[in-house]
Amino acid sequence: MQRRSFLMGLAAAAWMPVRQSLAQADPLPSWNDGSARRAILDFVSRVTSAGSPDFVPVHERIACFDNDGTLWTEQPMYFQAIFASDRLRALAARHPEWRTQQPFKAVLDGDRAAIATLGEKGLLEIVAATHAGITTEVFGQAVLDWLAAARHPRFNRPYTDLVYQPMLELLTFLRANRFKTFIVSGGGIEFMRPWTERVYGIPPEQVVGSSGLTRYTMPAPDKPELIKEARIEFIDDGPGKPIGINRFIGRRPVFAFGNSDGDQQMLEWTAAGPGARFMGLVHHTDAVREYAYDRDSPVGRLDKAWDEAVRRKWIVVDMKSDWKVIYPFQLK
Amino acid sequence: MQRRSFLMGLAAAAWMPVRQSLAQADPLPSWNDGSARRAILDFVSRVTSAGSPDFVPVHERIACFDNDGTLWTEQPMYFQAIFASDRLRALAARHPEWRTQQPFKAVLDGDRAAIATLGEKGLLEIVAATHAGITTEVFGQAVLDWLAAARHPRFNRPYTDLVYQPMLELLTFLRANRFKTFIVSGGGIEFMRPWTERVYGIPPEQVVGSSGLTRYTMPAPDKPELIKEARIEFIDDGPGKPIGINRFIGRRPVFAFGNSDGDQQMLEWTAAGPGARFMGLVHHTDAVREYAYDRDSPVGRLDKAWDEAVRRKWIVVDMKSDWKVIYPFQLK
Repeated sequence: MQRRSFLMGLAAAAWMPVRQSLAQADPLPSWNDGSARRAILDFVSRVTSAGSPDFVPVHERIACFDNDGTLWTEQPMYFQAIFASDRLRALAARHPEWRTQQPFKAVLDGDRAAIATLGEKGLLEIVAATHAGITTEVFGQAVLDWLAAARHPRFNRPYTDLVYQPMLELLTFLRANRFKTFIVSGGGIEFMRPWTERVYGIPPEQVVGSSGLTRYTMPAPDKPELIKEARIEFIDDGPGKPIGINRFIGRRPVFAFGNSDGDQQMLEWTAAGPGARFMGLVHHTDAVREYAYDRDSPVGRLDKAWDEAVRRKWIVVDMKSDWKVIYPFQLK
Repeated sequence: MQRRSFLMGLAAAAWMPVRQSLAQADPLPSWNDGSARRAILDFVSRVTSAGSPDFVPVHERIACFDNDGTLWTEQPMYFQAIFASDRLRALAARHPEWRTQQPFKAVLDGDRAAIATLGEKGLLEIVAATHAGITTEVFGQAVLDWLAAARHPRFNRPYTDLVYQPMLELLTFLRANRFKTFIVSGGGIEFMRPWTERVYGIPPEQVVGSSGLTRYTMPAPDKPELIKEARIEFIDDGPGKPIGINRFIGRRPVFAFGNSDGDQQMLEWTAAGPGARFMGLVHHTDAVREYAYDRDSPVGRLDKAWDEAVRRKWIVVDMKSDWKVIYPFQLK
């Protein structure tokens, strides 16, 4: 027997199982083998396989994700609201009058009943005090500083640790299949953009969210600044999500994931397009590892959108049964 | 001599000139070898060469282009204004009252003096009549239908033929160097998006522009629509351009090209970032092949931005001397 041929045969035999396991490497290792996982894998296969009747050309592979409650936790409160509350506290030293003046008093006292009854005007005053009158750069740094120092009251971790490992895997899997992954959130774009690229792999130009007005100024020669103003420009929630998708992206998504009624119109808009479309909801069912809430929750209510998902056979993820881990720090 | 080695040497010798010419293939063949072309090539080389002190990581390679007057012609009038005028005429059959009612009478009569004096209110009424009350889908199709049928009064070509060949080459060259190319225009996003991917290779999600409000409706079960409203939401011009860049892109460009005073703040904003930055203006100097205009033009005035460009040594392209051809159809 030729020695060289023999050795080549050995090498080929050694390589084959390696090749097979590479081909079969699990792209969603934190997902249990349930209907949600199977639906995701089936959809991606159908829209990316050449010759498939459901094939979607690369430039149309747009996937949109809500953020609060879909990519990261939103209890006990939207994290941006906790940021605003902490910031108000930090700024209060310079504003002694806030201690006796609404709406600031309600926040500084931690008075949940009073906070819950703040109308739009009160919330806008808080936004004005905590988000406005500074440059976009200073605000971005304030967000990063807060994220570095703040800890979640229950998990005692930085808020950016409280992202969902299974959703990180999903984002990576979609991008490996040449999807463009977007965030479409009711949260502020300037609150999200300083960290969403590092944490989710979603660049600033693919973050769609709510925004306040900004003003262009030139306080010193050749040194322009953008100052954040105290006026809300756009709320990217509910019916605002398809409006935001149309304005910021200009294409209908083929894949969309949310978790609450605020995502209902985004999912409806996605579903209304021709061809294969994926509509998903994350249902918070796991009080032990995260939180369980839906129809009665003041934060992230999931009620009408759930009914529509059931009627129209959208994918509803049950966090308790579908996910092997919740957070990346729980990976063994 | 070993025959095999000899033949391999021959093959290598035959391959070398091919390799050299591939390496030296001109990425900007319609640009004369002047200072503008050299500045572009030098900039791209500096920011993409590993180890260069000016190296820009791929995710930060954002290039923004104005549209009217920078990527395509804007005379005798912004093409979107010609679209609105043509559309008004087409719709006038259903609105006999427009013949005697301003501002419609001014447009229908082609009365340039009257059109020039239309204030914001008059222009908004025209926008309302020609751009609003229909779905975003119907509007997009109206734009495509118009582009297919309409002809430029001087060149007798579809308006999408009147794009600048040297700028198409620049867009391709930047993308080959892993830049993301964006449009940042005062024109309407919904006027541009139906065709900018095909014509410029710039996808809808990378088109930033002016917009009107839209409204989400569900006129039939599970059949949502976005209706264009008669209200301007945002004008992406002048100081609006950095505001739009901040909102829609969320990163400062490293490369920006405009042609008029409406681009001044976009260029200032680009220039204000650290590291290597490229700021360019297209100066219309060629009355024979296109149009010559600058300080006195009502459309695309180039005055203050030109002075700033000279003071700050930004790149000013002289269309007459820098470009071998203007339009793709002039290529031999």
